[in-house]
Amino acid sequence: MKLLLISNSTNPGEEYLGWPRNEIKLFLQNAGAKKVLFIPYAGVSLSYDAYEAKVKEVFNQLGFGLYSIHHEADPVHAVANAEAIAVGGGNTFHLVHELHRTGVMQAICGRALAGIPYMGWSAGSNVACPSLRTTNDMPIIEPASFDCMGLVPFQINPHYLDAHPEGHGGETREQRIEEFLAINPDLWVVGLREATSLIYENGHLKLVGRHSMRVFRQGTNPREVEPGSDVDFLMF
Amino acid sequence: MKLLLISNSTNPGEEYLGWPRNEIKLFLQNAGAKKVLFIPYAGVSLSYDAYEAKVKEVFNQLGFGLYSIHHEADPVHAVANAEAIAVGGGNTFHLVHELHRTGVMQAICGRALAGIPYMGWSAGSNVACPSLRTTNDMPIIEPASFDCMGLVPFQINPHYLDAHPEGHGGETREQRIEEFLAINPDLWVVGLREATSLIYENGHLKLVGRHSMRVFRQGTNPREVEPGSDVDFLMF
Repeated sequence: MKLLLISNSTNPGEEYLGWPRNEIKLFLQNAGAKKVLFIPYAGVSLSYDAYEAKVKEVFNQLGFGLYSIHHEADPVHAVANAEAIAVGGGNTFHLVHELHRTGVMQAICGRALAGIPYMGWSAGSNVACPSLRTTNDMPIIEPASFDCMGLVPFQINPHYLDAHPEGHGGETREQRIEEFLAINPDLWVVGLREATSLIYENGHLKLVGRHSMRVFRQGTNPREVEPGSDVDFLMF
Repeated sequence: MKLLLISNSTNPGEEYLGWPRNEIKLFLQNAGAKKVLFIPYAGVSLSYDAYEAKVKEVFNQLGFGLYSIHHEADPVHAVANAEAIAVGGGNTFHLVHELHRTGVMQAICGRALAGIPYMGWSAGSNVACPSLRTTNDMPIIEPASFDCMGLVPFQINPHYLDAHPEGHGGETREQRIEEFLAINPDLWVVGLREATSLIYENGHLKLVGRHSMRVFRQGTNPREVEPGSDVDFLMF
């Protein structure tokens, strides 16, 4: 299995998919992939055409072809024939709704387990987890199920952040994850800060990027894991 | 119908259920209620017993009795016999999961429509709306359905906030609501800031509290509505 799970597409003040370009390039090169099937289903506030154009420009600059599944008459067939898959960010509930509705969730899962490279950012990283239950997104649409691909056995919280607006009574991100753990005590949760990614290649999982990640499990104190670290314990 | 829909229980630095005490007291007094059935199902990080004790203390101070549904052998029967209902905040997905599982969602809806006073804060305000689709909470558990009571025909976003952590790439609250409207164009969404409530009494809806609320609808600019304003347009 080959996975590139990116926390976020864009850091403020930087280009779209700016910071993870090098990781994307190396990941696809290592896998020998030349053309990527793009899944734009998380896009809500922009059209799938506009979303495809934005992502295509970046992938073309890096030397890869990219085509979006929304043009395909048979999306499951398109997945069956893809060399590599990229799932874009946006609203996780909309993404999961569409992945279930089209049958593409199961199709991608099968291909990724069979070894084609899978990459996602934000919502696209969430759906590689057992379920969407650690997303930050608003539940704007009800999917057939919260279940996702389970390519990794732990849950990612993308855009993990430590800041909390001063004087605000709502829960902090850490409190939200603790609520998740209170009723899901057997899972690891990874708070993946912006400008970081998880890469799974050659049977090993590692963290890359500019920050540490925060790892949570019921009954233990959260701990920080530095970039470059081997985090294979999360895969068992 | 008599509704008190409170954005949040507690402002930082203030007592639990501190700021809305006067509204709670007047609301129950006007309705002639003396004893309140409490619904603690949104509580995840504290036990139902602890949650009940915390809320009971406040209601007792205000001169009202309070007993929690989790002690009742037949929760639907308890709702059928209640004089007034209070639904506490916490995790909206957990609340909706339990309300559907126990049949209490439908039971409360029937009683509230029949005229007994209904009050809720945070998650407890969300479930008075058509669905949970404008909650801020993490989807830590999958409910049987996103559908809620629809006592009001619009969606509330409780703990509405304008602040956004500097340098964070995740969506602002307003962007999240705009995503909701993009696929739900026929609904009003109300951003209910902390320290504000909506009261429905004598056939009129009004905003009370310390701040204006932000009102959203697809295809129009968001607008601010001041406390004291009549907001009956939201009920049609």
